[in-house]
Amino acid sequence: MSAATSVAGLVEVDDLAALARGAAVLGTGGGGDPYIGRLLAEQALRRYGPVPLVAPAELPDDACVVPVAMMGAPTVMVEKTPSVELIGRTVTALAEYLRITPTHLACIEAGGINSTIPLVAAAQLGLPLVDGDGMGRAFPELQMVLPTLYGITATPMSIADEKGNVGVLNTIDNHWSESLARALTITMGCSAIISNYAMTGAQARESLVGGTLSLCRTLGRRIEAVRAAHGDPVAAVADELGGRLLHTGKVTDVARRTTTGFARGDATVAGPDGVLELRFQNEHLVAVRDGEVLVSTPDLIIVLDSETGEPVTTEALRFGHRVSVLGAPADPRWHSPEAIELVGPRYFGYDHDPVRVWGPTGGAR
Amino acid sequence: MSAATSVAGLVEVDDLAALARGAAVLGTGGGGDPYIGRLLAEQALRRYGPVPLVAPAELPDDACVVPVAMMGAPTVMVEKTPSVELIGRTVTALAEYLRITPTHLACIEAGGINSTIPLVAAAQLGLPLVDGDGMGRAFPELQMVLPTLYGITATPMSIADEKGNVGVLNTIDNHWSESLARALTITMGCSAIISNYAMTGAQARESLVGGTLSLCRTLGRRIEAVRAAHGDPVAAVADELGGRLLHTGKVTDVARRTTTGFARGDATVAGPDGVLELRFQNEHLVAVRDGEVLVSTPDLIIVLDSETGEPVTTEALRFGHRVSVLGAPADPRWHSPEAIELVGPRYFGYDHDPVRVWGPTGGAR
Repeated sequence: MSAATSVAGLVEVDDLAALARGAAVLGTGGGGDPYIGRLLAEQALRRYGPVPLVAPAELPDDACVVPVAMMGAPTVMVEKTPSVELIGRTVTALAEYLRITPTHLACIEAGGINSTIPLVAAAQLGLPLVDGDGMGRAFPELQMVLPTLYGITATPMSIADEKGNVGVLNTIDNHWSESLARALTITMGCSAIISNYAMTGAQARESLVGGTLSLCRTLGRRIEAVRAAHGDPVAAVADELGGRLLHTGKVTDVARRTTTGFARGDATVAGPDGVLELRFQNEHLVAVRDGEVLVSTPDLIIVLDSETGEPVTTEALRFGHRVSVLGAPADPRWHSPEAIELVGPRYFGYDHDPVRVWGPTGGAR
Repeated sequence: MSAATSVAGLVEVDDLAALARGAAVLGTGGGGDPYIGRLLAEQALRRYGPVPLVAPAELPDDACVVPVAMMGAPTVMVEKTPSVELIGRTVTALAEYLRITPTHLACIEAGGINSTIPLVAAAQLGLPLVDGDGMGRAFPELQMVLPTLYGITATPMSIADEKGNVGVLNTIDNHWSESLARALTITMGCSAIISNYAMTGAQARESLVGGTLSLCRTLGRRIEAVRAAHGDPVAAVADELGGRLLHTGKVTDVARRTTTGFARGDATVAGPDGVLELRFQNEHLVAVRDGEVLVSTPDLIIVLDSETGEPVTTEALRFGHRVSVLGAPADPRWHSPEAIELVGPRYFGYDHDPVRVWGPTGGAR
């Protein structure tokens, strides 16, 4: 750890339940079972000790920041949990290929299991973790990160599976990184650990969304506290994220299929205001009610248990589940024309422009 | 080039027509259009000069032997020719990853375009080429080489496409190398250049089939000479390979599909002795007449134009084509129980034991 790095805080075992819960909120339905991410991180923190969190603003220019993540279908991640060692080994494989010595690890995706996977590697490798991520939410494809918009390349990247297979990719652009890594992930059994977007401290300061791990922890704690005080945890989440309640009701249908390495599907939620249709590809991407798009990617569509405020992942959606659907604004950089090309509804095959939580002109929180 | 290496001969531009023709014979239907392999090698040899051939027996123990090959569906290779630079770059990518300095290049497959691809890299990189290969024929999958039976690992391996994407794989066994490299090859557009099975001179002496590049050249020259003398080129090929004529007739049907990265299919040849059915997956694997398996993998099934003796690849098979089908014995090591598990008919989904060219007890040439 660089002497120039000041520590913004620590992530300890006691933080993990709240952090994983908040990560599932930002996961917008994707990112896998937060309980699994929490168990993995607990195992690592108990063995190796707490992980220092460093705000992006505190990173020295020449810091060597290496993100690590899980890639694949959340439906599969639930049944195929990686080991602590595999996650660290994937970072090491990239560092050896690049002949670099990482000074900090980072999350490339704040959401679901990918908020806790880097904690596991940071604990194991004894490195501090950047308090931030590459999206400020979760997205299904590898090129869908703000660093892509800053010209930071996804490769060289490493990819590894639990059997011991390791690959390194060096591609001509971040879309090719996605295609080739996805092909490997599918062959590896629909989930793999990846390490990519290695960057300098200067690049991390500019391109990451700061504070998202702290935000996850805060969100998780607030849900618990409001629930304990018999308050409205759904309203508390909306308040914390500057979002709004879109819909409440009962899940009446879920169609889900794991194809081309993704968990794709639709769910309907029937309530007093009508029937809301949620369209997802790992993450919830579009919310439609009575033919009207209420909110769409890149803004966040968050499904919470109406009573407890617990986030509900797409694979946990069940008939009869009473849920509340929130919209929350994405990092404002996701609304630039280049960003919309990367993650807007049309990229995913939906024939409409993005619809923002706070209407076409507002939205930044 | 090591001073300890003696040179068994040179491959010059004038050799290439014969060599490519002979390579298509050993290609047993697979390996792509020999004309394309010849053009690529001509381009490289005209630019960089002839390539020294070194017999495996002449390799010093500590030689650093690096094979290079094309991977994918021959049907696609015909339309997507790699560049000279791409082939050399793939070798260099592996050498850089392994931090080795290759002293010799090698063919991993004698057959079709993979007999000439290594010539291209050898010319470009100024390295001698081993006169031999890892199969003594062509097979469709990456683990199907004699080095696998000697415990030599396929990885680390490099893989690259014409667009500039490069990958390195490090797998737990040679079957996983095949699976992961195949996934990348398919995503790269169904053809890619690979460099793998890097080995020492001692390992190459033990595990390769010696003399196969010279054999390709000899075969090609003999076909031409016999034809010029109005002799029987088909009989000459059978004689050169210690094989026998199985069937003659006219192609009456060809069913061909490019699936999961392979050119798979069946062809029927109707003649005076009945109807022969050829079953292929890149290469011809089984020849059946009237319900009886005449010859099967690992022995060679070779289709030649009945008049000219020119080898016919599976993608060049056409209705009405008059062809002769030969069987020829494989390297005897392919008939061990471990080898039959790797390349026998049952591996490919045919429910019978191997049938050898010279009956169940004979066959070695």
